[in-house]
Amino acid sequence: MKPNGIILKLDSPDQPGIVSKIASYCALHSANLTEFSQFTDHKENKFFARLELDTSRMDVEDDDFINGFGTLGRALHANWHFRKRPYKMRAAVLVTKTDHCLNEIIWRTELGEMPLEITSIIGNREDCREIAEKHGIPFHYIEMDGELKAAGFEKIRDIIIEEKVELSVLARFMQILPDWFCQQFSGQIINIHHSFLPAFIGANPYRQAYERGVKLIGATCHYVTSDLDAGPIIEQEVRRVQHFHTPADLMRLGRDCERDALAKGIRYHVSDRTIIDRNRAIVFPD
Amino acid sequence: MKPNGIILKLDSPDQPGIVSKIASYCALHSANLTEFSQFTDHKENKFFARLELDTSRMDVEDDDFINGFGTLGRALHANWHFRKRPYKMRAAVLVTKTDHCLNEIIWRTELGEMPLEITSIIGNREDCREIAEKHGIPFHYIEMDGELKAAGFEKIRDIIIEEKVELSVLARFMQILPDWFCQQFSGQIINIHHSFLPAFIGANPYRQAYERGVKLIGATCHYVTSDLDAGPIIEQEVRRVQHFHTPADLMRLGRDCERDALAKGIRYHVSDRTIIDRNRAIVFPD
Amino acid sequence: MKPNGIILKLDSPDQPGIVSKIASYCALHSANLTEFSQFTDHKENKFFARLELDTSRMDVEDDDFINGFGTLGRALHANWHFRKRPYKMRAAVLVTKTDHCLNEIIWRTELGEMPLEITSIIGNREDCREIAEKHGIPFHYIEMDGELKAAGFEKIRDIIIEEKVELSVLARFMQILPDWFCQQFSGQIINIHHSFLPAFIGANPYRQAYERGVKLIGATCHYVTSDLDAGPIIEQEVRRVQHFHTPADLMRLGRDCERDALAKGIRYHVSDRTIIDRNRAIVFPD
Amino acid sequence: MKPNGIILKLDSPDQPGIVSKIASYCALHSANLTEFSQFTDHKENKFFARLELDTSRMDVEDDDFINGFGTLGRALHANWHFRKRPYKMRAAVLVTKTDHCLNEIIWRTELGEMPLEITSIIGNREDCREIAEKHGIPFHYIEMDGELKAAGFEKIRDIIIEEKVELSVLARFMQILPDWFCQQFSGQIINIHHSFLPAFIGANPYRQAYERGVKLIGATCHYVTSDLDAGPIIEQEVRRVQHFHTPADLMRLGRDCERDALAKGIRYHVSDRTIIDRNRAIVFPD
Repeated sequence: MKPNGIILKLDSPDQPGIVSKIASYCALHSANLTEFSQFTDHKENKFFARLELDTSRMDVEDDDFINGFGTLGRALHANWHFRKRPYKMRAAVLVTKTDHCLNEIIWRTELGEMPLEITSIIGNREDCREIAEKHGIPFHYIEMDGELKAAGFEKIRDIIIEEKVELSVLARFMQILPDWFCQQFSGQIINIHHSFLPAFIGANPYRQAYERGVKLIGATCHYVTSDLDAGPIIEQEVRRVQHFHTPADLMRLGRDCERDALAKGIRYHVSDRTIIDRNRAIVFPD
Repeated sequence: MKPNGIILKLDSPDQPGIVSKIASYCALHSANLTEFSQFTDHKENKFFARLELDTSRMDVEDDDFINGFGTLGRALHANWHFRKRPYKMRAAVLVTKTDHCLNEIIWRTELGEMPLEITSIIGNREDCREIAEKHGIPFHYIEMDGELKAAGFEKIRDIIIEEKVELSVLARFMQILPDWFCQQFSGQIINIHHSFLPAFIGANPYRQAYERGVKLIGATCHYVTSDLDAGPIIEQEVRRVQHFHTPADLMRLGRDCERDALAKGIRYHVSDRTIIDRNRAIVFPD
Repeated sequence: MKPNGIILKLDSPDQPGIVSKIASYCALHSANLTEFSQFTDHKENKFFARLELDTSRMDVEDDDFINGFGTLGRALHANWHFRKRPYKMRAAVLVTKTDHCLNEIIWRTELGEMPLEITSIIGNREDCREIAEKHGIPFHYIEMDGELKAAGFEKIRDIIIEEKVELSVLARFMQILPDWFCQQFSGQIINIHHSFLPAFIGANPYRQAYERGVKLIGATCHYVTSDLDAGPIIEQEVRRVQHFHTPADLMRLGRDCERDALAKGIRYHVSDRTIIDRNRAIVFPD
Repeated sequence: MKPNGIILKLDSPDQPGIVSKIASYCALHSANLTEFSQFTDHKENKFFARLELDTSRMDVEDDDFINGFGTLGRALHANWHFRKRPYKMRAAVLVTKTDHCLNEIIWRTELGEMPLEITSIIGNREDCREIAEKHGIPFHYIEMDGELKAAGFEKIRDIIIEEKVELSVLARFMQILPDWFCQQFSGQIINIHHSFLPAFIGANPYRQAYERGVKLIGATCHYVTSDLDAGPIIEQEVRRVQHFHTPADLMRLGRDCERDALAKGIRYHVSDRTIIDRNRAIVFPD
């Protein structure tokens, strides 16, 4: 990752001269645009952008630049978000039994592929404790069976808040989140669903795929909303399957889809490459 | 295509020694196995196979060999089917307005990529008449709007029977087939559905995909049964899409999926590489 | 294709404020930026951009706007190119025997997928005359065997100039172009090479791929330079192959790669989505 | 993996009745053919096959069945190989600095995806010691710089022999193997080359790919012969790249190719799904 500078994400009603205004504000203070991605939704009359700025020759402090942007942002009726580099986004990974997605995230994080810091791994089973401890990441076991579920999610909320977690990753976490949780952390929860949504919504999608005799299986990485498996899609992956693949084979091939799609989805999110717009995600890929 | 010899397709209850028995019958008459594909469904206890036989050194006539197999076939409680090479499977292509799938089929047929002879193109619109005539294929315009629909399908049936058509291809044919038609030509109708089934069943799947914000779109080639869009899947294709793709872009990218999936599906069918088993298709690809 | 407005392509040394300056010039005259793609090569200190402008509310005529940009362009030491929409890029397609690439280009052009007008098809064999005539496109047969080759390329040059051709597509044209021809039409000739370059340079790549036992074959669409098969790559496609595929199968699968890669490459070029930079092509895909 | 039974791999000159003879031998002793993959190379007149046998109802002991096959095998002038299930193939993994391929192999092995037992990890750097120790696998550090290289390979040979290793995996092992080593363990060494062979043979392929401006990068898993990067290819993978990807990005995307291709290559080898035939690998994929 390029270590310094600032990332700006912005969305607003579309309007003439908007690129010029944003770029001029940057140029005014010698913030050099090193990457500029933009999308105009002509049907909805909306403007979306992501900018990477080299601030090494800027004539003011980063915070001064960021604060000063507010005047323009308000004039544009925009939503905007700045992030100063270098940074690491603090994340909690929620798991149940299987560890392939967790392993993938840890591996890519340790390799420095994305600016992520896993502050804790939270499990409603003990299965992933060992991998957490091997990598020196705190593991929180939280019982969630039956009546304990409601209290469990409150405990998770406390951990998220206490550890200043910005992103919660559901890495094959086999519990349905309560509405209040989805709403409190809206836009901050990423799930990997083990099917090519919207096909095979709900439980046991590989079994469903096998019964249907599909020739491709997939996985979908999406933001979590209170509407199960219907949140904005960030990334999808598929693998080819044939008649001789058993449900166990589909699970094996599906694991590869899940790891790929989740890793990419997280990468885009922590690099501020996603903007949620109603029920879809604008993604500026790298 | 290899020009001579015999293709045998067979399915039966699984049983010990079945490969040996089939191969021995072939060897007995010096029919040389040049390709042998087999699948055993251990869960359902079923056996499926496809054989290509070089008959150039066989000690009997082809028909004698084929007839003689019946004794073994019955002993195995099998369904089986022989085809003598060279052959061209006679097909009717049903269309409405768009011609990209039709064009693809004609092109691959003319190139000799598959043993297919398009005996007629049947349209419930006149749009594809020109392309049919350019390639010297008879075009039948059949009105199917409103009350004419029932009679229209009877006319199509007559054409199919009269022309000894073995395969009907729905190449973006925008009419729902009546039950009696699906049943009369069961296993002989191939459709291209313009979505990645079972996602986006029904009308206007590209619009549905756009609204859902998916990151991959697809097409599904399947056998037609009376249950809409739920017949055995032969082939599926996907293309990556992004937030900036409009429904028109999805249609454009979808056309490429449709051409690919349909061409492969037809290829597998006319090469006797598919066996329908309940609601799935066993496909031995080449 | 969006029908109106202006496309601007530009490359220049990178410099602070460049986006701001370009966008401000547009905003100054109420040219609305509907699409803005940009790439900064930090290593080479170069800036590349492509802009789509909605000019419906512009305060001057298109040509006035375009001419006025020159002052800024020169100040930026830029190369730039404007194109007014709607337009159709005039193209000649050069062929020898096989017609699959030609067929693909004609089909996509007729469908309106890209702003292309095929003004002529030039063949050093007669094989493609029929398809040209079916589609009402003039066919020029030019003998190029042996001593006729040099004169043949002069005739092709004459056709290109006379017909105001902006793009020459080598659609499996089996003749090596002379240096003077490559230089005269530099950046205006696109070739499809039937291998995954830089593997299998030169003749008979499918045979080479078969002998090497590769598991993927490909095709490469690239600009033609005088260095054989080494020009800037626009697009590449691959297909999976297995041990049982014969050289004839590789040719069949390769045809699909070639059609895809060439169609995309042409699409990017005629949409002004490519910028040639030394030996590579910057491509802003859609 | 299906736990019991026998796998038979065989290659021989092609000859009439060969399938019948093999299947009859199995049927004679009630060994049930559960999977039968076959390939006839008509050009070279060779026959290749892989059989999975359910031996639960066999009328003799496994070893008796295996020994008895010799009579038929010799009559067919075949090479053949039996393996009794369940088994774990003993493997050494050779590494230098990077651990992504090693991590992938360990992860899939621990998950039980393939019948592999990693008996030791051998490094000419200390970098991978930690990951080895975390997973309880012995790590052998062997100095190979300069004059120590020859002795180093003798030490590796000793480890391989002493630990009864059947497969050596070069998981980004950055040393060229001596000829004697390649020959002694012919067909038992698998390498991952970080390019889409035969493109970019030799050192620093990602840099080469970047300089060439390719639009796809790849990785190749192949058997090692004394001819550098020219051994039989088992599997290849590609990823799409664009102009904005730096050499560091290509390395990141390349890592994903390498992990995929190597994992599949190993999987096919340890499942006895590969047969080496001169300079290519017959692969019966699952």
